[in-house]
Amino acid sequence: MSLPSSVKIVEVGPRDGLQNEKTLISADDKIALINKLADAGLSYIESGSFVSPKWVPQMATSSDVFKGINKQSSITYAALTPNMKGFEAAIDAKADEVAIFGAASEAFSQKNINCSIAESLARFESVIEAAKANNIKVRGYVSCVVGCPYDGDIAPEQVADVAEKLYQMGCYEISLGDTIGVGTVDSVQKMLQAVSARIPKQHLAVHFHDTYGQALTNIYTALQHGISVVDSAVAGLGGCPYAKGASGNVATEDVVYLLNGLHIKTGVDFEKLLAAGWFISDKLGKSPVSKVSNAYRAKV
Amino acid sequence: MSLPSSVKIVEVGPRDGLQNEKTLISADDKIALINKLADAGLSYIESGSFVSPKWVPQMATSSDVFKGINKQSSITYAALTPNMKGFEAAIDAKADEVAIFGAASEAFSQKNINCSIAESLARFESVIEAAKANNIKVRGYVSCVVGCPYDGDIAPEQVADVAEKLYQMGCYEISLGDTIGVGTVDSVQKMLQAVSARIPKQHLAVHFHDTYGQALTNIYTALQHGISVVDSAVAGLGGCPYAKGASGNVATEDVVYLLNGLHIKTGVDFEKLLAAGWFISDKLGKSPVSKVSNAYRAKV
Repeated sequence: MSLPSSVKIVEVGPRDGLQNEKTLISADDKIALINKLADAGLSYIESGSFVSPKWVPQMATSSDVFKGINKQSSITYAALTPNMKGFEAAIDAKADEVAIFGAASEAFSQKNINCSIAESLARFESVIEAAKANNIKVRGYVSCVVGCPYDGDIAPEQVADVAEKLYQMGCYEISLGDTIGVGTVDSVQKMLQAVSARIPKQHLAVHFHDTYGQALTNIYTALQHGISVVDSAVAGLGGCPYAKGASGNVATEDVVYLLNGLHIKTGVDFEKLLAAGWFISDKLGKSPVSKVSNAYRAKV
Repeated sequence: MSLPSSVKIVEVGPRDGLQNEKTLISADDKIALINKLADAGLSYIESGSFVSPKWVPQMATSSDVFKGINKQSSITYAALTPNMKGFEAAIDAKADEVAIFGAASEAFSQKNINCSIAESLARFESVIEAAKANNIKVRGYVSCVVGCPYDGDIAPEQVADVAEKLYQMGCYEISLGDTIGVGTVDSVQKMLQAVSARIPKQHLAVHFHDTYGQALTNIYTALQHGISVVDSAVAGLGGCPYAKGASGNVATEDVVYLLNGLHIKTGVDFEKLLAAGWFISDKLGKSPVSKVSNAYRAKV
């Protein structure tokens, strides 16, 4: 069983993480966070989203954030763009890449964005066409790849169907998200087997939430399966909207600790990453949701 | 790669867990906890220790606890007994099994019990002889099997040396403890390879602390290595004495969730286990240190 020699970490804290934090963070502090993450060696940073500020108040300043970053040419600063209006704003703000999303669960799609999975994907066609015309890469997220807060268990083939559609539509990478963190090794393996039967593994990423403490084990399972792109959020930003007070995104600090122990290269400076996590956690008035981060600070 | 079809969980919450909790728990509450754990299907419960109450005030009531348990014949109620005085008290209290401990780190042995590893093992000889004479089984713990708070990394062969000595002295099972929780997959694999070259795997157990969030991944690694005995503490009781405020013992709830997901039998009733964890956590005035437990309670 061979593991990848290096892993690309997709840092989603400034977008997927912060959008679920209630304390509003200023554009300046978000810019400072993104610059710190870049200095720590994260090569891909999802830095904001262009959605209605009524839906996601935390992302209302995304244009200012993108325009204020001290951009490094080796780093990809990406934005979530659910529609053409958002895409145009992302282009205006000079985002390097954009992302779109589909759910593997019909109930989740209906409750979350008020349309069927098929309808949601159709809405993205214009975004993908426009991205191609602008030579902008598009990343695709699939949510609820193991379980759904409304529908329970999700069939692996259902995940593969949605992932394949996004891939065929032109997404260069499909990020498979266990949105409510219920997956364990066996359910994750079955899901990855179904999806990788349709999409080459080098075009797949995993996106685990640590709600049930299984994220690192599931990431290790994905590595064993040949996946080498892992989404995570510094300081475990974001919590879980479906279990108030529970953990959300797996912490980048915990992922890097795991990968360092496996001697898998990430390019991340661990001390600088810890500092970035404490910086944003201080702004939120809490400790990082990262056992590694807290253990390092607490060491006697 | 085959995983075990069933795992024996060694529940260490009432001893290893509680002894590191500052809030003193009454004998009655400890008895209630142990009875709840037994009702939840835990077949092996480390229920107390017979040590000087000056060292470990929380364990001062161990005799009362053992005498007050509603004992089930199918369950092993074990005690930690560091010396003959403790062993005699354990026999008097009708403990089913006893346990002794050695460190894989010289510095830890010196700082923790003020003698060398060799001296500490020699002190246990009389306990093991007396146990044999009383037809009582002896379990052996090895601490600091990956890292030591004073010495840093511990060589796998050093762990194997101590484990083999305990095994040769007559311990039927050796529990390999990552006392400070620093281990990751690679360091754990190397340690297990070194130890299992000397001791048959069916006589080995793993004892992980979740200080750095790696416990479940390390347990999964141990399962892949052929280990089928796992120590854990309900509600993640205990904290980490070497990193104040950090996590200690991996929570039994999180381990059972992992094993259930792998379809590995444990005999544990998950709902009753969660209830036992909330029972003792309420007595301690805090939430369980278990992501699974908190996620279940928080589910919307």
